[in-house]
Amino acid sequence: MASKPLDYENINENVKNCAYAVRGELFLRASQLEREGKKIIFTNVGNPHQMGQKPLTFPRQVLALCQAPFLMENAHVGIMFPDDAIARAKHYLAMTSGGVGAYTDSRGLPGIRKEVAQFIEIRDGYPSNPDLIFLTDGATKGIMQTLGTIIRNKNDGIVVPVPQYPLYSATISLSGGTFIPYYLEESANWGLDIDHIRQSILDARQKGITVRAMVIINPGNPTGQCLSYANIKELIEFCYQENLVVLADEVYQQNIYQDERPFISAKKVLMDMGLPYSKDVQLFSFHTVSKGFWGECGQRAGYFEMTNIPPKIVDEIYKVASISLSPNVPGQVLLGLMVNPPKPGDISYAQFISESKGILESMRRRAHVITDGFNSCQNVQCNFTEGAMYSFPQLKLPPKAIEAAKEAGKAPDVFYCLNLLDATGISTVPGSGFGQKEGVFHLRTTILPAEEDISEVMASFKKFNDDFMAKYEA
Amino acid sequence: MASKPLDYENINENVKNCAYAVRGELFLRASQLEREGKKIIFTNVGNPHQMGQKPLTFPRQVLALCQAPFLMENAHVGIMFPDDAIARAKHYLAMTSGGVGAYTDSRGLPGIRKEVAQFIEIRDGYPSNPDLIFLTDGATKGIMQTLGTIIRNKNDGIVVPVPQYPLYSATISLSGGTFIPYYLEESANWGLDIDHIRQSILDARQKGITVRAMVIINPGNPTGQCLSYANIKELIEFCYQENLVVLADEVYQQNIYQDERPFISAKKVLMDMGLPYSKDVQLFSFHTVSKGFWGECGQRAGYFEMTNIPPKIVDEIYKVASISLSPNVPGQVLLGLMVNPPKPGDISYAQFISESKGILESMRRRAHVITDGFNSCQNVQCNFTEGAMYSFPQLKLPPKAIEAAKEAGKAPDVFYCLNLLDATGISTVPGSGFGQKEGVFHLRTTILPAEEDISEVMASFKKFNDDFMAKYEA
Repeated sequence: MASKPLDYENINENVKNCAYAVRGELFLRASQLEREGKKIIFTNVGNPHQMGQKPLTFPRQVLALCQAPFLMENAHVGIMFPDDAIARAKHYLAMTSGGVGAYTDSRGLPGIRKEVAQFIEIRDGYPSNPDLIFLTDGATKGIMQTLGTIIRNKNDGIVVPVPQYPLYSATISLSGGTFIPYYLEESANWGLDIDHIRQSILDARQKGITVRAMVIINPGNPTGQCLSYANIKELIEFCYQENLVVLADEVYQQNIYQDERPFISAKKVLMDMGLPYSKDVQLFSFHTVSKGFWGECGQRAGYFEMTNIPPKIVDEIYKVASISLSPNVPGQVLLGLMVNPPKPGDISYAQFISESKGILESMRRRAHVITDGFNSCQNVQCNFTEGAMYSFPQLKLPPKAIEAAKEAGKAPDVFYCLNLLDATGISTVPGSGFGQKEGVFHLRTTILPAEEDISEVMASFKKFNDDFMAKYEA
Repeated sequence: MASKPLDYENINENVKNCAYAVRGELFLRASQLEREGKKIIFTNVGNPHQMGQKPLTFPRQVLALCQAPFLMENAHVGIMFPDDAIARAKHYLAMTSGGVGAYTDSRGLPGIRKEVAQFIEIRDGYPSNPDLIFLTDGATKGIMQTLGTIIRNKNDGIVVPVPQYPLYSATISLSGGTFIPYYLEESANWGLDIDHIRQSILDARQKGITVRAMVIINPGNPTGQCLSYANIKELIEFCYQENLVVLADEVYQQNIYQDERPFISAKKVLMDMGLPYSKDVQLFSFHTVSKGFWGECGQRAGYFEMTNIPPKIVDEIYKVASISLSPNVPGQVLLGLMVNPPKPGDISYAQFISESKGILESMRRRAHVITDGFNSCQNVQCNFTEGAMYSFPQLKLPPKAIEAAKEAGKAPDVFYCLNLLDATGISTVPGSGFGQKEGVFHLRTTILPAEEDISEVMASFKKFNDDFMAKYEA
């Protein structure tokens, strides 16, 4: 044999070209240190339960009963489960044909898609069609399938805000398309400048790229800003003019830490705008159980809703979904619970509200502690986390630090984050993983370390940072 | 706007080109009839729980406790759960960082991958490395990722047995590669002829195709045959000579209905063969919780093991897996339970054995009833289902039936299956969805209808078939 049938040289180039920094060099190094016995504070991924956030009780009771329906035939079930959890488990099991171990429709259970549609209708004040809602194994899978449907080849471009969640750059690479960045303005609290976006698109078109779609991440990841109504409207109008599909990543819609700017969905703004927008602008909206006060990342459940997508394309998306048969069914049930939580009057209502409020209020406090903590550090400047679950401080690295990074063969922010990890055990993601302007450096951390630990984590960060800055400014 | 940004004409061609018959025209028609109130017997997908197969008790107890760990703090837990289920739930929860709601390593929990490796070692008698085992949301996802890694463009070909499970043709289309069929010999109980395969490969190479990999489905889907040791050895030797990666789809390894030919893994045969094969032949092996006596399709859990794959490629596969963060964690736990079931001496052992034996023995009886039933029908001929969960009878359609199909604008087997569905409510998949020789027709049905119903289902089938054949032979 000349060479192996499968060599690094002969695998799919798109696989090689994609990069995913959230689980990249820093994460691998942190995992290595953990195996060696070092205590690591993982703030690289928005993984709330890993950081000590407790799952909500009611949904987990329902999931336990759905997994073991025979418990409901046990005379003692009432000692361990409240009646409304039992009723809800029966409600979901009745939607399945064979319980959570049977495949469902590849779009997800019709009954749960109906609950999602009702949730959207109440949230936005506009009708939602369950047949245009597909349940997925996490929002990620829906985003990957959508991009895989749109992108034909490297001449198809997708416009993405930078800094961005690297799912987008990775998936665009994997699908063989072209990533078109539009830079958010850090000095304007990560706002966006339409003229700037228009210029990015013009540049791409001059290179022969067909610009197909634009991603909006609201609340922003990693940047944490919440878009205003006016901003979303302007973006939709722009997509209408430029003939772009809108991909609205709204997975952090529950994570809002200020009252001035509540979450508003792209769907609602689009419908408010009326004709021609409400009939012509094509929109995919994504949501998940992994974020918010649920934080159920490991269960892998999400959905996407399609607006103004032609039925023939919906059919094609259904066909491709059917190859994987169905999203995981326990996750579908959990999604149903998220969009249809206990109501006033239900036995479990008070506990559910107390648990969920407790989590959100604690996150709100942590958003402040972390922003303030970063802003108290030497050469660090940080916008307030209005939403989502990340802080994205800018690091003003001294020239000597940049020089030292170069000698170590690392990007300056990677160098900083590796030093931070070694010194403190805090595992972050360098800003270069999300994209940043030339010569400007950041890191992303979650706001998820437990509230009782957070002052200590920030103190440990400050000590490292201030020593680092002092060392390289000397 | 000239046209919509997303029109049927401008989506990814690979999406349009792929076909997936298991959930195709017949399934959609059956779903429609069900909504209209007709009783449908779904035998189109191997979905055991939908057909009444009960989930095994012990694993579901463990899953319930993993979802609701607070139950273990309840003084009454012992009334509802045996001690070994409680111990096992603690065992798996201790492997997670934050329970089943936290993301895991993107390859799956290291502790569970270790249990999978031990299972493989005991099964095959050779070492298995947990770092070369990746857990996935069902075997399907692993197969799709593997093909997506191998295939670069339409000049890369994958050799697939025909009739085949259409996951392969669909995924090869979606990845933009070329499907190279090799026909199984129905008259030799779906055996394979190496000279015939060699010819298929030669033909493909003459068209400029680089033949990259060969799929082996054992036990066969839809054809139900179990490969002999000699057959597998011959295939591996062939792949060595022809420089092909081996993809061994072994998801039906528990479903064996005769004693003469037990399941033997491709990994075991490869290791038995010794050098140079054992170091040079590259192998991906796939397994799942969806089949066997578990039948846990809806939970979406599976794994693949890599043999002789260069570390740099393993790293790339890890990177791409990391974009989706992690497989669903309850499914990972279930997979752990499948590879490490209750042992003699455990409290739950007797019940576990009784349940699993009951299911397998019933399937074995049904395999006979269904084969005999088909062979008693006019113009129907059927090989015995040695393994897997399907029957794939040949339909000798009269020329007038073929004519009638043509007039109805349908393929002859689709015409037959649509008529069968309308007359009896039995939902099958036409043989054309799996591939068959020109002018030869089949259908696929599962052997999963409940044992108490199966005689009636077969009688209903026979009545329809014999009337159909009589009508078109008149």
